[in-house]
Order: sequence, then structure tokens, then C-alpha cells
Amino acid sequence: MTSFAEAADAIIAAGNRLDQRGLAPATAGNYSMRLADGTLAVTVSGAHKGRLAPAQIMRVDARGAPLDAKKPSAETLLHCLIYELDPSAGAILHTHSIAGVVLSRKLAEADAIVLSGYELLKVYPGIDTHAVDVAMPLVENSQDMTALAEELRTLLAAQPALLPAFYIRGHGLYAWGPTMAAAEAVAEGSEYLLACEWEAAKAQGA
Amino acid sequence: MTSFAEAADAIIAAGNRLDQRGLAPATAGNYSMRLADGTLAVTVSGAHKGRLAPAQIMRVDARGAPLDAKKPSAETLLHCLIYELDPSAGAILHTHSIAGVVLSRKLAEADAIVLSGYELLKVYPGIDTHAVDVAMPLVENSQDMTALAEELRTLLAAQPALLPAFYIRGHGLYAWGPTMAAAEAVAEGSEYLLACEWEAAKAQGA
Amino acid sequence: MTSFAEAADAIIAAGNRLDQRGLAPATAGNYSMRLADGTLAVTVSGAHKGRLAPAQIMRVDARGAPLDAKKPSAETLLHCLIYELDPSAGAILHTHSIAGVVLSRKLAEADAIVLSGYELLKVYPGIDTHAVDVAMPLVENSQDMTALAEELRTLLAAQPALLPAFYIRGHGLYAWGPTMAAAEAVAEGSEYLLACEWEAAKAQGA
Amino acid sequence: MTSFAEAADAIIAAGNRLDQRGLAPATAGNYSMRLADGTLAVTVSGAHKGRLAPAQIMRVDARGAPLDAKKPSAETLLHCLIYELDPSAGAILHTHSIAGVVLSRKLAEADAIVLSGYELLKVYPGIDTHAVDVAMPLVENSQDMTALAEELRTLLAAQPALLPAFYIRGHGLYAWGPTMAAAEAVAEGSEYLLACEWEAAKAQGA
Repeated sequence: MTSFAEAADAIIAAGNRLDQRGLAPATAGNYSMRLADGTLAVTVSGAHKGRLAPAQIMRVDARGAPLDAKKPSAETLLHCLIYELDPSAGAILHTHSIAGVVLSRKLAEADAIVLSGYELLKVYPGIDTHAVDVAMPLVENSQDMTALAEELRTLLAAQPALLPAFYIRGHGLYAWGPTMAAAEAVAEGSEYLLACEWEAAKAQGA
Repeated sequence: MTSFAEAADAIIAAGNRLDQRGLAPATAGNYSMRLADGTLAVTVSGAHKGRLAPAQIMRVDARGAPLDAKKPSAETLLHCLIYELDPSAGAILHTHSIAGVVLSRKLAEADAIVLSGYELLKVYPGIDTHAVDVAMPLVENSQDMTALAEELRTLLAAQPALLPAFYIRGHGLYAWGPTMAAAEAVAEGSEYLLACEWEAAKAQGA
Repeated sequence: MTSFAEAADAIIAAGNRLDQRGLAPATAGNYSMRLADGTLAVTVSGAHKGRLAPAQIMRVDARGAPLDAKKPSAETLLHCLIYELDPSAGAILHTHSIAGVVLSRKLAEADAIVLSGYELLKVYPGIDTHAVDVAMPLVENSQDMTALAEELRTLLAAQPALLPAFYIRGHGLYAWGPTMAAAEAVAEGSEYLLACEWEAAKAQGA
Repeated sequence: MTSFAEAADAIIAAGNRLDQRGLAPATAGNYSMRLADGTLAVTVSGAHKGRLAPAQIMRVDARGAPLDAKKPSAETLLHCLIYELDPSAGAILHTHSIAGVVLSRKLAEADAIVLSGYELLKVYPGIDTHAVDVAMPLVENSQDMTALAEELRTLLAAQPALLPAFYIRGHGLYAWGPTMAAAEAVAEGSEYLLACEWEAAKAQGA
């Protein structure tokens, strides 16, 4: 089980790594881990994720209410939703690649990003072959986190098997896993697959 | 309030970071901070911004006149203009991404780069939604800094709300904020948005 | 002759380097070296190649049977095949660039990626000019390693001169050499050439 | 005046930097400096430029004959030519960007890469405005260094003002300057400009 100090260390290291890969521009992104007592360690609002200080990680309860005198990320409710819907979730990363953003905007009418035939699809739990179609949910961006959380709740609950990733159009990726290492693999693998799709889109022209 | 030593440290760190991200090629770019006494710390002419030595930061007065026996960047007048027009400005960064340069050249007749619908637009002060059009001023490049400063003065003064960023066509981005961290967020976020626009332009073809 | 400790050090360093270049996303990739006694040092299944611990390198025999109580990479059989077919092979790297994956998918019917006229073709043994066509074998991806190994055996054995590289469509590159440095040069040079081909493909449109 | 030890340090540092930027793939590239006695320090054949050891730098005379019991880079004659034609040259870098290689191949019939309107053109000596056309010589690749050197001699001697850079098609860039810092600025600036041109070429389609 994860302590707050362990979570803070893991979140800082993940932010540093994601920033080096261009997945954490400006102050975008928010990361969290579920602690042993069911509360969450989450990044505060407005910090640069590539150089997080321990004081920029705070605790909230399972509904997102602050347990420290700090302001959590505006998107904390989405983290709470994921931990509620996926009991195995232990860490969540929210990344912002350029390729993912432009791909999600180009797929203007789609409600999923369909990924097919890539070896790296095996990064997702339960997928053991490239010969498969994986549909990553794609939702419209919103500044109303309560509404966005409810829309995502319906969408994720309807999946035959929960995929630990979804995309908010023009905004970014949410990816998670039982451990921070698992969440990092899903985030990194998903961003790789989105980049592949975007490269293919450019080669096909308009 | 910022001392010269603090400003020099912050400028060196910012240059190192921007260089690692490909935003400071060759000896391009110039950075500054406003000091407690109203004078400016600014990079000298010709230094590589990725490996600045403390001796490559100098002081100028609010009009750009050297206070040290060194030669300030040729574009110091633009820094002075920004500090004059925006009393909240404390740090200015001038970056040179490939994507920004080619996008600004492709928008050959435009006097603004219009950015719409991106979550990252929230990096700009006063913007709290993606559902907005932000027009970043785009001016022609010039080697006549006095003329360029006057053109920018008119353009920036006419904005309903001052956006802390503008672009010089085929040249680079100016971005600023109250602190170096704030200026870095605006520079990084702006370059990210310009890169998104450029990616989209390539997918659309000519 | 390479000891296990030396091999582990070389594999860890190579993984770190490949990861920094975006060639080892998520937990993808597997690397090996041939040891003095004919057994192999190979990465275990599921580790992130950018931050390998010594315990994530294990020994297998020349047929891929584990000699340690660990689970080797699922693709260990392909490593065994290469060491069998090329007695000079001492190190093997399996990388996963975005450019290579999308290029190999675009060449949907091809059984080779033909590279012509590049100075960097001289990275391949026996090639001393750019004025040459090099055909890198391109095979369909499969989760059946025994079948894939047999297909590759036929393909590689039929080459007039064995090229120390092949590509699995939508999956990744295998590259090798007598030493880890030589394998790295072939992997890095091959990924560079694939990236050049992909860039050219984008400029030509669909 | 530069000593051999100073030159070796500068060359190692430059290689490390260029490698981090993707400008020194596999074992490609060769770098040199002119020493106080008119002899040259040059990289040996076959070394990876991102991790040069001091023993991988050697001395040759002004005609390229080895003064140490090592094998100099195959392209040493081109370095000798540059030092002969440009008495101010003190350091030479030969880089290999993907963008430059594919651009030079696309410009299949051209004998120059014309760069116009970029602020970064000011990286070249004597250029103090963006409003200029700079023609970087572009020659066919050859494995016959004597012939290539003679062709380049004619081409460079015919320039109204010597540009400290030329490109070998499908191969790479030569850039130089009085000091290693100056050569790095020309190399970095030139590769930046070539990348801009390549980005623009992709947006225009075939």
C-alpha cells in the first residue's frame, strides 16, 4: 500500500519524465495516486509538472474534498471518478501531447479513437495480440467537471471491458494502472499510438 | 522584488531549459527580468542561450541604455516596450521554434495567429475556457527596432485585454509574465499551441 | 568474450540511451548479448527498457530456455534465431520508433523496405558507398514466435549477404552486430534511415 | 591559439551536444579544429560522436596525412580543403539531420539550397538582415574524396563571399567558424533553417 511520501516521490518522478518527453507543457496536467487509507495524493492547481516540489502534492478524500489547506487541480473530480469505477486503479496520469490534441480535433465527429494492428496495443491489460481493434473513448472538452465526470461515468461503465485510458478532445489523455509504473506504461504507450495515428493522418493528406 | 543575482540565475536556468527544447537555436533569443529598482537584467548580444555564463547577463535602464560596459541584445528595445506597456511584466522570453517560424510565414497576409478551442489556451491570464478565440498579434519582421517597437506599441495598446505574447513573422515569439515561471508557462504554452496549429496545417496540405 | 555482468551493464546502458531517443516506449523492446559460454543474457518480460535494473536481465540457453527463475521476453526465440544464423552476432537490439512503425504499415504489400542513395547506408557491414540499394526484410507481425522464427529463418538464409537488420510490420526493428556498440550503430542508423523514408513519404502525400 | 588538448575537449563536447540533438546518428560525422602549429585535430574513423574518448581524436597535417598511428575520418580531405580556402576557419563540424538529408534529396536538380527571409540567416557572417537570399552550395555525394574536394574547391572559390557551410546531397552538412562556438552556431543555425525548409515542403505536398 502506498504512503503519501511514496506517492509524492512517484508523482514527482513521473512529472519529470513526462515533461522531458513533451507531455507536460506549461502547467498542464495533473497526476494522482490512491493511498492506503483510500484518500488520494494529487498535484495542486497551477504547478509545472516537470519540476514539482513535494509541497505541490496534496491530499484529498475520495470525493475530491481537500484534506490539506491547498487547492487541488481543477480536474480532481475525474481522478475520483476513475478510482471509483476501477477498484484496481492506483495511479492516474493526465498528459498533453501535441499529436494527441491535433488527432482528437481532426476526428471531429468521432466518439472514439480506434487503434488497430499495432504491436504496442499489448500495453493495455487483457490485450495479447496486435490483431485487435481498441476503441479509446473520445469525449468533448468541458470546463464543467461535474458534467464531464457524469458523461464519462456513463461511457466507461458501458465498456465491455474497462480500458484504462480515455481522451478529451483538444485537451489531453487520461491513463491509469494499479501502480505508477503501470500508469506510466499505459500513458506512454497510448501517446505513442496516438502519435502513430497522427503520422499516418499526415501522410494521407486532407 | 528581484535582485540582479536572482534575475541572472533565473535567466540562465530558463535558457538552459529552452535550449533543451529546441527553442534557442544557435545564438538566437534574448531574455530579461525587471529588477526592484526599475532597471532590467538582459542577455548580452551573441551569446548561446543554452549555456549562459553570469557575465553574459547585463543591466540596462528602462529605456535600454547599458549600465554595464557590455552590448545588450539588439532587441532590448522590445523588452523595454513590453515593460512599459505592461506594468505587471517581470520577465520576458523570446523563443524560436521551427513550427512557429514556418506557421507565421505560411500565414503570409495575416496580422494575427488565431488559436481556438484548445484547453491550453487557459495558460493566458484571464482565459478560463477552451471555448474561446485568442488572437496573438503577428507583425512583419524588421531590423529597425525603433520602428518595430512603435508598430507593436500601437498594436498592443489597441488590444481589449493585453495578451502577454506576440509573434514576429519568420523570426520568433515574445512571451512574458509577472515572474520567470509565469513567462516560461506562457512561452511554453504558446509554442505548444503554435506547434499544434502547424501540425494541423500539414495534415490539410497546401 | 562477454561476461554476464558486462552484458548486463551494456544492456542497461543501451536501454537508457534508446529510451532517451524515443525508441523504447512503455515496456516495449528486448535486448540481448551472447556470453562467452554460448548462453545469452536477455531482458526479462515486461520491464521498462529505459530504467532497467540488473535483476531485469537474465540468462537463457542458446534455445531460449531460462537458466534463471525468471520469465524471458516473449520474443527470445527471435534472438536465438539470429545468434544461430549469424555466428558473428554478439548483441541484439529490438527498437520501436514511431516512424518505422507507420512506414512499415504504409508499405502494406511489400516484403522489404528498400533504402537507396543515403550516405548512412554505410552503417551496414560490407556497404562502402551510398550508391546502392539495400533491401531490409519486412515480415508480417505474429504472436506465434515459433512460426515467425521459421519464416525469418527462410528469409534471412536466402539473403546473398546477411543484412544485420529486419523489420516486423507495425511492430519494430531488429538490429545486431558483433558488439553492443556495433548493434547500437546498426539500430540507430537503421531507425535514422526509416525516419528519412517516412519524412519523404509525407512530403509526397497519399 | 588552440592546443591539441583544448581541441580534443571542444570536439568531445560538441559531439555530445550534436548527438543529443539527433545530428550525429550511428558513427556518422567528423569534426576538427586547426591547431596553433597549423596541424589539425580530427576525429578518427568509425567512432560514435556522442561519446568520444580523447583517444578518438588524432592529429593530421594540413594535407590530411596522419601524424598519429590512427586512421583519420575518410572525409579528412574536405576538412583540409576548408582550412585551406578559409584562413579564418578554426573549427569544422559535419552533421547529419534527417530534415537536411530528405530536403537535399527532394531538391534533386538544384545546386544550392536557397534560404530567404528567416531571422536566423543572421547566424552567417556578414548577414545582418532577414531580407536576403542565401544560397548554400549543394553538391552530389561521392565516395571519391579527391574528386569531391576538387569540385567543392571550384564551387567555394566562385562564391562572391565565402559562406561557411555547404551541403552534400543525401549525406550531410559541413559548417565552420573561427572557433568551435562559432562553428556550432553555424551548424545549429543551418540545421534549423534546413528543418524550416523541410517543414514548409511537407505543408505544400508533392
